[in-house]
Amino acid sequence: MRLHAVILAGGRGERFWPLSRRARPKQFLPLLGDRPMLAHTLERIQGLVDPRDLWIVTSRDLKSQAESIAPQVPKRQVIGEPVGRNTAPAMALASWLIQDGDDSVVAVLPSDHRIEPQDRFREELRRAAETSFSRNAIVTFGVPPTRPETGYGYIETGDPIAPGSPFHRVSAFREKPDAAAAAKYVADGRHLWNAGMFVFPPRLLLEEIRAHEPRISAALEPVPRDLASRGAEKAIEGFYEKAPSISIDYAVMERSKDALVARAGFSWDDLGSWEAIGAPGSRDAQGNVAVGKVLLLDSKDVIAFSEGGLVAGVGLHDLIIVRTADATLVVRRDRAQDVRAIVERLKARGDLDEFL
Amino acid sequence: MRLHAVILAGGRGERFWPLSRRARPKQFLPLLGDRPMLAHTLERIQGLVDPRDLWIVTSRDLKSQAESIAPQVPKRQVIGEPVGRNTAPAMALASWLIQDGDDSVVAVLPSDHRIEPQDRFREELRRAAETSFSRNAIVTFGVPPTRPETGYGYIETGDPIAPGSPFHRVSAFREKPDAAAAAKYVADGRHLWNAGMFVFPPRLLLEEIRAHEPRISAALEPVPRDLASRGAEKAIEGFYEKAPSISIDYAVMERSKDALVARAGFSWDDLGSWEAIGAPGSRDAQGNVAVGKVLLLDSKDVIAFSEGGLVAGVGLHDLIIVRTADATLVVRRDRAQDVRAIVERLKARGDLDEFL
Repeated sequence: MRLHAVILAGGRGERFWPLSRRARPKQFLPLLGDRPMLAHTLERIQGLVDPRDLWIVTSRDLKSQAESIAPQVPKRQVIGEPVGRNTAPAMALASWLIQDGDDSVVAVLPSDHRIEPQDRFREELRRAAETSFSRNAIVTFGVPPTRPETGYGYIETGDPIAPGSPFHRVSAFREKPDAAAAAKYVADGRHLWNAGMFVFPPRLLLEEIRAHEPRISAALEPVPRDLASRGAEKAIEGFYEKAPSISIDYAVMERSKDALVARAGFSWDDLGSWEAIGAPGSRDAQGNVAVGKVLLLDSKDVIAFSEGGLVAGVGLHDLIIVRTADATLVVRRDRAQDVRAIVERLKARGDLDEFL
Repeated sequence: MRLHAVILAGGRGERFWPLSRRARPKQFLPLLGDRPMLAHTLERIQGLVDPRDLWIVTSRDLKSQAESIAPQVPKRQVIGEPVGRNTAPAMALASWLIQDGDDSVVAVLPSDHRIEPQDRFREELRRAAETSFSRNAIVTFGVPPTRPETGYGYIETGDPIAPGSPFHRVSAFREKPDAAAAAKYVADGRHLWNAGMFVFPPRLLLEEIRAHEPRISAALEPVPRDLASRGAEKAIEGFYEKAPSISIDYAVMERSKDALVARAGFSWDDLGSWEAIGAPGSRDAQGNVAVGKVLLLDSKDVIAFSEGGLVAGVGLHDLIIVRTADATLVVRRDRAQDVRAIVERLKARGDLDEFL
């Protein structure tokens, strides 16, 4: 078995302003320390996937940035999408280009999530790859929920494939629930967070795509298998023009008979806002979280993040403070989602475009 | 009458960290907008004092900085003190160097206070100079207190020199009072804040110094009246070595029979902390004060100061936020004085010396 990894790094996202910008979305930010999330993602699978089997799918204007963060990934295998079409076309294209060899398994991994601890994740991913290969199944990861989160999708688990196995059949995929449904999901113990990671033999994925989304398969036909071929780039552009925009959950997972869910033993967070930086594990005795040069006096439950200079606080509580090279954000913790309102206001004003 | 101005610009002060630094004290900071306080101070007397009659007394290591902020002041008249000796020696030295001509009057003005409106101040200063000259008196300014401030000295007024005149005889100088005394001072209507400004004929001040602080007079003797003379710089150095460190209030004002106090009609603030930046007059409808690029949403009673980049806030109240090129301070408004604690902590830590 040969494990390939396809890192999805095409996201935008304004919830991490002022650190995230038009030209620097979340996956390129050092949200968890000194290196970009994308670098952490690659580090996490080091030793498990050979560098020549690494792929990145991002948007065209972010391609060179992705390349410089991930120099170990063969340049040709950093795909710059001319237009975003959600996950199904990206995964189908990667499978199409990778499928040579009967022993291939592909792991599709988002580049902007927090996963800990790394070695546990690596081990579970290895087992997922083996299970996917031996059972010819699409394995997805389900994370036991720790709160009734309404921002995530859920997977309802069926029976385990063997007594005590972490791999379960899938009963149902659930879209983002309302608060009542989320509370029920957490309580019943059968629902897991859909972490957006998928492990599968590429041929199986292409079969499923052909069965359920033939428009994607058809769009793939003119694309040469070898990216070094003449016209490959042009062909990929044509593919993105024709392919419908659709998520892999909707296109395949909800319809597949070959889906399994691996109950994750690692902790996972999709880092949806600055608030997520303050996960319990990273707090000090006063509940403060500091990333970068930070000095807090008589403060509690403060999340302070500095990209460069010093952030100093006195007598504060329940605030998020973010300092970047050209902007400082201060927001009450229960208003972290409203960072988007700042971005909207900046767009509306016009005179502060440099900060978008 | 010829009015000379001596601007005192030797202060240090850590209360405006991170904007104020070892090498950039309050008087060199653009606390009230885009120009340093010292520049505002000079602007305030423009048209009243001829540029060749402008003097600045600062510390030696700040001299070149003062010169670049105040290019209109003759370079020779920017005195860099080798060591700080409080106000009496500085004022005696300036008087010594200025005294040529029987029609001279000197106004000594701190460089780091807020005074508004400018034209009113200019007019009152002009009248103070005339009164000082015609009565051969040392005139000081007293500001009607608007709160029981314990951080200021007070002047108890005696009778006006003429019915309805703003010029009063001085009953007593009061050092910084405790809260109870301050409350009494505000209530009795006879006490004014000592604004640290003095207007006097230089010969009179030298006479008073000779009478009350002969050590200062003696130290002055070797100093040539003409700064262009050979050895003048060396002589000034010798003066500062010998002169005792003493305030003009203590050395002269409390003992002089020729002191008058002018009841000020302008508003005045010595800007003792970031909190002072939020004076009622500068607030918007939500009580927010913004200096520089600031964007506040759903916030009230916030003082936000940006030297360069953008400061953005959501859902905040009663905070001071200061952003400089290399640091961001966030402090609760009622803790503004504790900014000093940050500076102390920086000194203690050692690894963050660059921010001192």
